[in-house]
This record gives sequence, C-alpha cells and structure tokens, in this order.
Amino acid sequence: MLLIVKRGATRDEVDALIQEIQRFGFRPHVSEGEETTLIGAIGSGPTPEVMEHFRSLPGVAEVLPISKPYKLASLEVRPSPTVIAFPTGQTGGGHFMVAAGPCSVESREQILTAARFVKRHGAQMLRGGAFKPRTSPYAFQGHGRDCLPWVFELAGKYGIRVIAMEVTHEAHVDEIREALERTGHPTAVMLQIGTRNTQNFELLKAVGRQREMPVLLKRGFGITLEESLNAAEYLASEGNHQVIFGLRGVKTHMGDPHRNLVDFAHVPVVRRLTRIP
Amino acid sequence: MLLIVKRGATRDEVDALIQEIQRFGFRPHVSEGEETTLIGAIGSGPTPEVMEHFRSLPGVAEVLPISKPYKLASLEVRPSPTVIAFPTGQTGGGHFMVAAGPCSVESREQILTAARFVKRHGAQMLRGGAFKPRTSPYAFQGHGRDCLPWVFELAGKYGIRVIAMEVTHEAHVDEIREALERTGHPTAVMLQIGTRNTQNFELLKAVGRQREMPVLLKRGFGITLEESLNAAEYLASEGNHQVIFGLRGVKTHMGDPHRNLVDFAHVPVVRRLTRIP
Amino acid sequence: MLLIVKRGATRDEVDALIQEIQRFGFRPHVSEGEETTLIGAIGSGPTPEVMEHFRSLPGVAEVLPISKPYKLASLEVRPSPTVIAFPTGQTGGGHFMVAAGPCSVESREQILTAARFVKRHGAQMLRGGAFKPRTSPYAFQGHGRDCLPWVFELAGKYGIRVIAMEVTHEAHVDEIREALERTGHPTAVMLQIGTRNTQNFELLKAVGRQREMPVLLKRGFGITLEESLNAAEYLASEGNHQVIFGLRGVKTHMGDPHRNLVDFAHVPVVRRLTRIP
Amino acid sequence: MLLIVKRGATRDEVDALIQEIQRFGFRPHVSEGEETTLIGAIGSGPTPEVMEHFRSLPGVAEVLPISKPYKLASLEVRPSPTVIAFPTGQTGGGHFMVAAGPCSVESREQILTAARFVKRHGAQMLRGGAFKPRTSPYAFQGHGRDCLPWVFELAGKYGIRVIAMEVTHEAHVDEIREALERTGHPTAVMLQIGTRNTQNFELLKAVGRQREMPVLLKRGFGITLEESLNAAEYLASEGNHQVIFGLRGVKTHMGDPHRNLVDFAHVPVVRRLTRIP
Repeated sequence: MLLIVKRGATRDEVDALIQEIQRFGFRPHVSEGEETTLIGAIGSGPTPEVMEHFRSLPGVAEVLPISKPYKLASLEVRPSPTVIAFPTGQTGGGHFMVAAGPCSVESREQILTAARFVKRHGAQMLRGGAFKPRTSPYAFQGHGRDCLPWVFELAGKYGIRVIAMEVTHEAHVDEIREALERTGHPTAVMLQIGTRNTQNFELLKAVGRQREMPVLLKRGFGITLEESLNAAEYLASEGNHQVIFGLRGVKTHMGDPHRNLVDFAHVPVVRRLTRIP
Repeated sequence: MLLIVKRGATRDEVDALIQEIQRFGFRPHVSEGEETTLIGAIGSGPTPEVMEHFRSLPGVAEVLPISKPYKLASLEVRPSPTVIAFPTGQTGGGHFMVAAGPCSVESREQILTAARFVKRHGAQMLRGGAFKPRTSPYAFQGHGRDCLPWVFELAGKYGIRVIAMEVTHEAHVDEIREALERTGHPTAVMLQIGTRNTQNFELLKAVGRQREMPVLLKRGFGITLEESLNAAEYLASEGNHQVIFGLRGVKTHMGDPHRNLVDFAHVPVVRRLTRIP
Repeated sequence: MLLIVKRGATRDEVDALIQEIQRFGFRPHVSEGEETTLIGAIGSGPTPEVMEHFRSLPGVAEVLPISKPYKLASLEVRPSPTVIAFPTGQTGGGHFMVAAGPCSVESREQILTAARFVKRHGAQMLRGGAFKPRTSPYAFQGHGRDCLPWVFELAGKYGIRVIAMEVTHEAHVDEIREALERTGHPTAVMLQIGTRNTQNFELLKAVGRQREMPVLLKRGFGITLEESLNAAEYLASEGNHQVIFGLRGVKTHMGDPHRNLVDFAHVPVVRRLTRIP
Repeated sequence: MLLIVKRGATRDEVDALIQEIQRFGFRPHVSEGEETTLIGAIGSGPTPEVMEHFRSLPGVAEVLPISKPYKLASLEVRPSPTVIAFPTGQTGGGHFMVAAGPCSVESREQILTAARFVKRHGAQMLRGGAFKPRTSPYAFQGHGRDCLPWVFELAGKYGIRVIAMEVTHEAHVDEIREALERTGHPTAVMLQIGTRNTQNFELLKAVGRQREMPVLLKRGFGITLEESLNAAEYLASEGNHQVIFGLRGVKTHMGDPHRNLVDFAHVPVVRRLTRIP
C-alpha cells in the first residue's frame, strides 16, 4: 500500500509512520516530492483492516492499495502532469523541446557540426552517446568516458546547454557528473535508458537514486506498456521523479520491408494513464 | 575479423599478433579456450588485403570475417558442440540434466523441501533465486545476499551439488562466490541471466569475465534469435565459453488466454547455427 | 441470447418460441443437435426482463446470455467433448486419428504413393488438396474439380476410406459431393478451411449448412484464439456441429530463421474452453 | 514469367503468343491495360532458355521473371503511379480524397445524417456497409441487399456521388450493380475488401473480374506486406487494375491498453514498392 502523508505533517509523525510500517512487517519506502511525501509499505498485500488502521494514524492523508503498480507516476496520486525544467525549456504538461544529434559520439568534427546545427536551428538539446549498447560485442561500443570532457567542452563552447546521454552502467552516472564538474560549463545532462535496459532494474535503481539529472526511459521491446511504466516507477520509487517516457520504434510484426514501427497511439494512452511527459 | 591462432603457437607469436592488430588500428580481443586461442580484431570491417596480410603472419591458423557476429559460439569456429561439465552431469553434445526448484528463495522450509525433492527424484540441479527482477518495484525482490549462506548450507547438507542462481547485478557474482567459499560445501553454481537482462551488455561482460561458473542465458523478449545469440557472444568474447542458451516462454501474440508461448523450433535452429547447448 | 429447448418439447412449442423471438425483433436461429435443440435469438443484447420472459415460456429449458459467443462450441451448453466418427475411427473425447498426405494433389503417381503409404502405415486419413489458396495468383492453384474423380477413384481402390480436402469456395462442396457420388466408393470426406479463410464468414456459413461432412477449421493468422473459436461457431450455428479445430503454425515473431511457430499451449486451452476436438 | 506485349502488336501476334504459351505447358493469363497488354505464363518457373525463346517472338517487348509476384502492381512494369478517377476526384499519384461515414448502415436517419455531413464538409465519398463480417455469428451482420436501394436513393438525393461498400461474397457485386441500375442515380461505388478477406482469393478473383468498380483492399491481419500486395495482384491479374491499398490498424503486440495500431511506415514503403495508391 501507499501512504500519502498530510501536507504539514511533522518529521516525528513521518518517523512514527515508518516505524509502524516496519512493525507490520512491511519495508518502508519514502519518496519526498516537492508537494507530497509518499511512503510505500512494501510487502505482500495488506488486508483492508490494516489499511484502515494506517488511515487512522496522525499525519496520514490517504492510504491507497498499489493496484496500478506505477502509482508514483499515476495521475491518481498527483493529478497534474509532471513538468521537467531544463536550462533551455520545459517538457511535459503541454511544453515540449526538440533534441537532435547523432546516435553515438564519433569525432570532434561530428559533435562540432551537430552542436552548430542544434544551435542554428533552435533545438533545445544535443544528443550523442558515449556509451553505446551494441548487438554485437565486436561492434564499436562508443568512445566511453574518454570522450566526455571534450564533448562537454565543445558543447559549452557552442552554447549548448542540455545534452542527452545514454547510460548502460551505473558507473556512467558518476563519470558524467565528474566530467561535467571538471569542464565547468553550465551544461545540464538528461540521462537516457535505452530499450535494451528498460527492465535492467539494478540500473534503474542506481539512476533513480540520483536526483539532479532527469531521465528519459525508452519503452522496452517486446514488453507491455504496463511493464514499461512499471520500469519508470523504479526510477520514481528511488526518488527521481523527473522521468520522461520515450516512444521508441519497435520491430515490425512480420519481416516487413521496413525496420521499425512507432506506435503513436502510446502518446494519448500514456497521457491518460500517467503524469509522465 | 577473427584470428584463429595455430595450436602450438608461442607466447611471442601471440604477442606479436596483438601488436600488429593494434598497429592497424583495431582493438585486440583475446579469448583463450581450452583448445584454441582466438583473437578478435575489433573495429570497422577490414579489407580483404588486410585479412590476407594477417593470414600470412606466423602463428595464424585462419582469419575469418565476423559476418555472423556470434562467431565464438558458432560451429564454423569449433565444429563440435560445447559440452559443459557439472559435478552431477554434463549438458550439451547430447547430454542433458534436469534442474528443479522454486522461482525465488522464500524460506528455509521451502528450500529444504525443494532440495529433498531434487535429491529424491534424481534431478541434477536445484534452482532458486536470491535476486529477483520484478516488474514492479513494490513486489518482493528476493532475499538477496543474506539468504545465500543458508541456501548453500542447506543444499550442501542435502547433497545438492549444483545450484542455478540468477544474477541481475555484477556484484551478485562476487556475493555468490564469497558465500560459496564461506560455506565450504563443494557446491557448484550455474549463473543465470534472465530475459530482462539478455541485452544488458554490461552485466554480460562482467559475468563473462569470470570463468569458473557456467552461465545460462535466456532468450530475450521481443528480440530476434540472432540478437539473443549475439548476447551469448558477449559472454564468450569476455572469456567464458560455458554458455547455455535457455528456451524461455515469450508473451503470446494476441491477448490469448494463456500467458506464455514456448517456441520449440528454437531447439533445432540453435543446434544448427551454434555449438551452444 | 440462446434458448435451450427442453428435451421432449413439441414441434408446436418450438414454433411458438420462434414466433415469439420474431415478435421481439430478434432473428431466430435454430440448431437441432442430436441431443438438444438450441434457438439463438440474434439481435442487440436482450434485457434481463426479456430473458426472464423467455425463460417462462413452455418448452424452454434455459435461456443463456451469449457472452462467450462461441456458445454452441462451449462446454457450458454441452458438458461432454464432441466426438466425431469417421469410417476409420473417431476424433475428440480422447480418441485421435492420423492423417497424412501431400499439401496439394499433383499427379496420379503421387496420390498412389501417398494412398499406399497411408494404408501400409495404418494412418486413418489421406490428405491432399485439389483447391489450393496460393499467396501469388501466378503460383499453381491446384488441379481443381478435374482431379476429384481420379483422386477418389485411386483412394477407393487402395482402401482409403477418409480424405481431407480443403475448400476455398462454396461451390467446391458441391463439386466434392458430386464427384463422390459419381465414383461410388464409400469414401468419407473431411472438409478443411485454411488459415486464410478462417474469417471468410460467407464460406463458413455455406460449409456449415451442409451436415454430412465434418469440417477441420484451422486457427487464423494474426487473430486471437477467441476470434478463431467464433469462426468455429459460424459453422456450428449453421447446423454443422462436426467441427475440428486445427492447431496451425503461425509466423514467427521476429524474422527468426525458421518459418513457422506452433503454439502447443492452444491444446489445453481449447480443451478447457470448448468441446471441440 | 510475364510477357509485355509491344505497343501496336496485332491481334494475331497476341493470339500466337497465347498458343505458344499453351504449347509450353503454361496457362496464359492476359490482362489488357489501357497502355500495355501483359500476358502471364503461369506454371512452374521457366528456364532462361525458354524466356529467351519468348523474347524472340514477334509482338514481345520484354519477358520478365515473376520474382516479385505482385508484378502488375509494381513500378517495374509501369513506372507511373496508378491514378483512379471518381466522379468527385482522383486518388493516387499525389491526389487524394476523403471518405466518411459509419461502419455499417443501420437506418435511414443515420445515412441521411452521414450524407448531409459528407456533403457539408466537402468529403468526396460516403462509406457505409450493408454486408458486415462480424466476429460472432450472433452479432448484427448488416441489413444486406435489402438496404441497398434506399441507401443509393438517399445518397443520390443528397448529392453523394461516390459510395464505398464492403463486399464479403461475390454475389454482393451483382446485388450492388443491380441496385445501382434500379436507382438510376449516377452514383459510383468503390468496393471494399476487409482485412478478414484479404487472402480470400476466390472473392478477390470474382471482384477482380469486374472492371467498372475500383476496389479498396485492406492489409491483412498477421500477414506480411508482401502477402497483402500479392492479394492486390489477384485483383489486378483478373483485369481490375483500379486497386487501392488500405492502411488498416492491426492488433497491438502485447495486450496494450489500446486496441489498434496503425503502421504509418507502410505508406512510404508501398509507394516505393508499387504503383498502387
């Protein structure tokens, strides 16, 4: 179940709730949002009586069963869509931004060209991957951490304020943070989780534990939309609520002569089901 | 391209090959098998002339283009099927073993029951997961490292010699190894990579770097067989050739009233294409 | 809704029911089985009151809402599995038969060989198509009606008592019947509806209107099991209850290197949901 | 193989070609287009020598192997896209028309409303089905031939000049033609083949044999694009080249919470592969 804490609840009340949750054998899971504090009580399904008990405790606004497991991302818990702010614009709640750039960082010339292009045409974000998950171990896997300093350097020089960067290992988050600090440019980074890692829950947890960089999560190949939204919930449940859901092309059904199929119907469906941009 | 090193090539010859690979701008990738040493030269496709040059060098048995990227797993490179030996039997090349046990480790009683059952009915392997990738972050995620000591203890006590254990993070490999050492029972472990991590290449690389525990890789949801076999190649290319390919049920096409579909046609196809059990 | 007529109801009672159904604006749909007479009242969903009214009429055993639309095929209406009798055996309810033969009738030699083979190895049915639905209009479409006389002739001569024959047009049913009569051999025919015609409802209705030949209906490509079972219901609702459901291979998901995938899980599912062999 | 007849070839030359095709054991298949006459020689693959022989005959412009079996629909045979003319506009080759209307004809009021709506908003075509293929035999199957006279009457009265009408049985074509003649309004009809009948080849042949009404063929569920284009070829190979390919929603992959998925990538692919609008 999910406890929604009353606005204005005291620290002591929250601590008491956490202890009570543990006393009942659940694992408490606190996520403090800007507006609301939520406490997940993780464990096998509570009885209606147990839920009623928690509803009666001081500091509790509401107790919800976790039926839709992507509760933190759901419009039931927070009725307004999430808006994520970047230095160059916002996304969500009717706002949108344009990102452009190559799949993977290949050379200075390439990034230079891409950065100029993004700038000239008014896009708000440069994309380009240092860490590339490739189908084959023998394919080029990206320049890795080594390219981060000069990518950020070049981007900063050409006035790029936001970069989208895929991560495939939790260590990449630190490597990106360090490279950013060393560069000293005020560049913001949006982390990206690709379709091959949509259900790499350990990576999601690690990326969700840091809160300064928003995360673009791509829908997974061959899994349901609900499963992809649950993956987004992994990020949110660790504390990072700045999650964007990416509409990715998936394999076409039947050996059709085109490679990817984009199911645009996901846009209204995700908007109806969640607060995620 | 892939260099197959002559049997009996000297250490110096191998080192010279590695240097020559680097001189041409490729990244060398040595995998020493029991019978054959292979050196992958990673980088964008070599010309026929370059391949001919490497063919002429001392210590080189053959140079193959990496067209089927799962070359290490292919019958072209090693014509005999891989046979993997466990304390209780072999798998591959016509041998097979039976594993049984619960999806996840829940309690001592459960493991005790399962261990006795495996023993009594003559199965060769107990399965049971400590680390469970769950669709929802609020679902029980397994007992984790804490249960490893008593699982191995119980298993050893009831004469279980092989345990299959899923890993979802590279740290789990060390945790399993340590728990095994601490227990002191001569239990062997087969690591397992689940369908959600079939293309978690960082995990595959980490698991592939250790060579003592064989790895069961399950086919991925929503990806082609070739992509799954490439994932197996990640394990092999890091040095662990003891890879078993798991025929997993996938989602049924069309909201059918049963949950999983097993495509048994994969068995002869994988046998025709690869040496993987 | 579906009216189950009482055993022993008089002809007059049945006629009165039909008139009452029409008076309410429904279209009556009588199917007289060996054990039970059913009257479908076709039209937009009756209210509970209307159903109650019909329940109170003389001759009515039960009135069921048509929620599972494959009601005639369902175990709810008749609790025992359908058994279909052929001259050489039975299928359904635990009995099974083996059919063998070429996809399409190509020549006398071929049918001769096949007939002998079927006979020698104890199969109960010869298959071979005269009318072949081909992806391309330029591919061989079968020998058509012209081959029927000699196929039945040869089959009879070699003691084949049952032949499975695909039909793709309602006229084929008459052509088969006439050829059978002209031949004079006591051969039985099982009609076959292929996957491309699973939802060719006009063909299903025409084939369902004849009752002497059982029908093998193959599951459809790209439609749900429920839709395929509804297609079977078209046959049954026209009067032919001798329907067999065929487990056909469907296209593999993802450009896999094998052509067809058979979902064996359909067997227990169809057995649980329907009385169809 | 496919013989492209020279422009200006005499009737005698064409007849001689047909006889020669028969002499070689092929079945001749003449389709006379406005610009080109094509003769398909149907049968198992001709040798290069045979093709060379036919290339040398009088009246033959070219002989093509039928590798892409949808040859008549292909840009190889006729390099310009097909343009289909209706009384209210054209479709194909950059032109397009808008059709609107209900799935099935339900009542005079409904058709009246739809006709006025189409007229007022400037759409070029009214759609509305008299013959409806329904998943369940117990669902409303449309008013059938009985509604045709008043549908055409109403449409004509409100100035509707084009109606799209699905057919599910070859008899429907005649029923539509007769109703049109009886009405006397100058309404044009576009026949429609639904997804359940995309591979109902007998229906396609019958509809293809009439040439006055263009045909909208919808892509099939669960079959490849190539298979759907071959279905279009059935229409063309019988003489009706006025074929439009319909981009239909198909079932979503995975029990997603929306019903249909439209693969818009088919538009450029069909445009690249064929001349079909």
